[in-house]
Amino acid sequence: MIAAAESLLAAARKGDTRSIARLLTIVENDEPGSADILRALYPETGRARIVGVTGPPGGGKSTLVSRLAAAYRSIYDRVAIVAVDPSSPFTGGAILGDRIRMRDRFLDEGVFIRSMASRGHAGGLARATMRIVNVLDALGTGLVIVETVGVGQEEVAVVRVADTVCLVTVPGLGDDIQAIKAGVLEIADVLVVNKADTPGADDAARDLAQMLSLGHGRTEWKPPILRTSAQDGSGIDELVRAIDAHATWARSSGELEERRAGAAREEVEALLRDALVKRLESRIGSARVSDAVKRVATRELDPYRAVDELLDT
Amino acid sequence: MIAAAESLLAAARKGDTRSIARLLTIVENDEPGSADILRALYPETGRARIVGVTGPPGGGKSTLVSRLAAAYRSIYDRVAIVAVDPSSPFTGGAILGDRIRMRDRFLDEGVFIRSMASRGHAGGLARATMRIVNVLDALGTGLVIVETVGVGQEEVAVVRVADTVCLVTVPGLGDDIQAIKAGVLEIADVLVVNKADTPGADDAARDLAQMLSLGHGRTEWKPPILRTSAQDGSGIDELVRAIDAHATWARSSGELEERRAGAAREEVEALLRDALVKRLESRIGSARVSDAVKRVATRELDPYRAVDELLDT
Repeated sequence: MIAAAESLLAAARKGDTRSIARLLTIVENDEPGSADILRALYPETGRARIVGVTGPPGGGKSTLVSRLAAAYRSIYDRVAIVAVDPSSPFTGGAILGDRIRMRDRFLDEGVFIRSMASRGHAGGLARATMRIVNVLDALGTGLVIVETVGVGQEEVAVVRVADTVCLVTVPGLGDDIQAIKAGVLEIADVLVVNKADTPGADDAARDLAQMLSLGHGRTEWKPPILRTSAQDGSGIDELVRAIDAHATWARSSGELEERRAGAAREEVEALLRDALVKRLESRIGSARVSDAVKRVATRELDPYRAVDELLDT
Repeated sequence: MIAAAESLLAAARKGDTRSIARLLTIVENDEPGSADILRALYPETGRARIVGVTGPPGGGKSTLVSRLAAAYRSIYDRVAIVAVDPSSPFTGGAILGDRIRMRDRFLDEGVFIRSMASRGHAGGLARATMRIVNVLDALGTGLVIVETVGVGQEEVAVVRVADTVCLVTVPGLGDDIQAIKAGVLEIADVLVVNKADTPGADDAARDLAQMLSLGHGRTEWKPPILRTSAQDGSGIDELVRAIDAHATWARSSGELEERRAGAAREEVEALLRDALVKRLESRIGSARVSDAVKRVATRELDPYRAVDELLDT
């Protein structure tokens, strides 16, 4: 390992917040030293609990997550929030203002907050999130909450790294929400109707129950439907109990082991792909690849033949 | 090419709708014959115009897209809508009801509608969408509208295949929408405030203008901000003119060429990765890969060392 990474790691292990932040930036962006850091920490991973929270925008998730983190602080010395903000692939620009206010209101020093924009992560957002979680895990975080806004494939991929996934909706989100719920519902282990004190909460809970009854459960776990009001904190204790009940079930049923094996498979396969492409490029040179791309763009060559040509070199 | 694919292709070229649908399913899911079909059609692609429409849920995009398709039918013999519905990676479940009602209200036989769920597309949703667009393009579609719901990285990747990207928002979507707009704004060529007859339309337009003024334009194109009411059709003609103005600019400035070269590069690189992994697996056997994955999951081995071991075989 390069010396800089080594001393950073030592400082981070002692709990130095700035060193932890720098370490996370390195692994998040896959900067030089990233692989060495992850190699060194890997044997110490797999201990932290990981809770995922997702749902459409406007659901009050940030407040809910802050409440959850505060509640888990009575059990764990160190809790972390990894907030993945939806953003463009070009500039990032995670909105932190809300979260800073939250920290002042609910959280203490035992809660580490990390905000990730969705830009430019080598190999995708889900893998970058997993790298961040692994580092926090190895550094002794007891529980990591991974929060994303949105219910697309990318967000689903991000929260799938969690042991337990909470889907947060709110009453009255309008038409399109039906389609969204139907999809993301399948990865949700715990369903939450937040802002449960606003009109339409009963309807929202009933809709969810109906959609659940239509689905074919992948396992024997039946996702409970909870009501919370993150603003005043009601329902948070029940939510913690539901998450813990799922975690207990997941551990005893083999579900947790299966999820973690799935994550390991994805990471190994992705790294394998990267390594193979790098080998090829260093063998045949990037100019040859660029030339093939140019001919594909002008329709002189189809992409399949282009690949055949490159591999036949 | 296998005989079945060949006869399917012949029927599709004659305009047989069921054959086209079957062809699209084959390329969408990368079924056997897919590569052959795309190879055969590739020289005839690159002619259709591609318009992307995206934005947060609840924006009335389906109606707007139907209106756009109807308007473009006065110019093009064949127009297609490829609607990418947000959905889980497990069961699909695209919601078609809305769209069928739309077809009855606005559209004629010259508009081909294809709905894609976001599940299980080998190599990701954006690539599957591009394969679909390529087939429609080669079969003589003059203009293809690619519609997605959502503003995450995946949706952005899907609409980036378009020559012109429209971002559709509506007044009063709440807090989180700020973060979303700031991100996706960068890939938008035309901005639309739909439901412009509802309260808050002025605020929404002003917010967009302000955010645009803060951004650093990647090119000299300044995205116009338009107001539409898809329900009664007002503003649609102006939207068509704005899209056409962008298309003309993109063609003359080299932007279009650059976007298409980018798409070609991504496809070639992705196919290259797939081919390399397949070669490796057939050489070392999938059992060896599974064994390495198992050891990574139990933390006996870190993923980087696992890849080193597999490649050193």
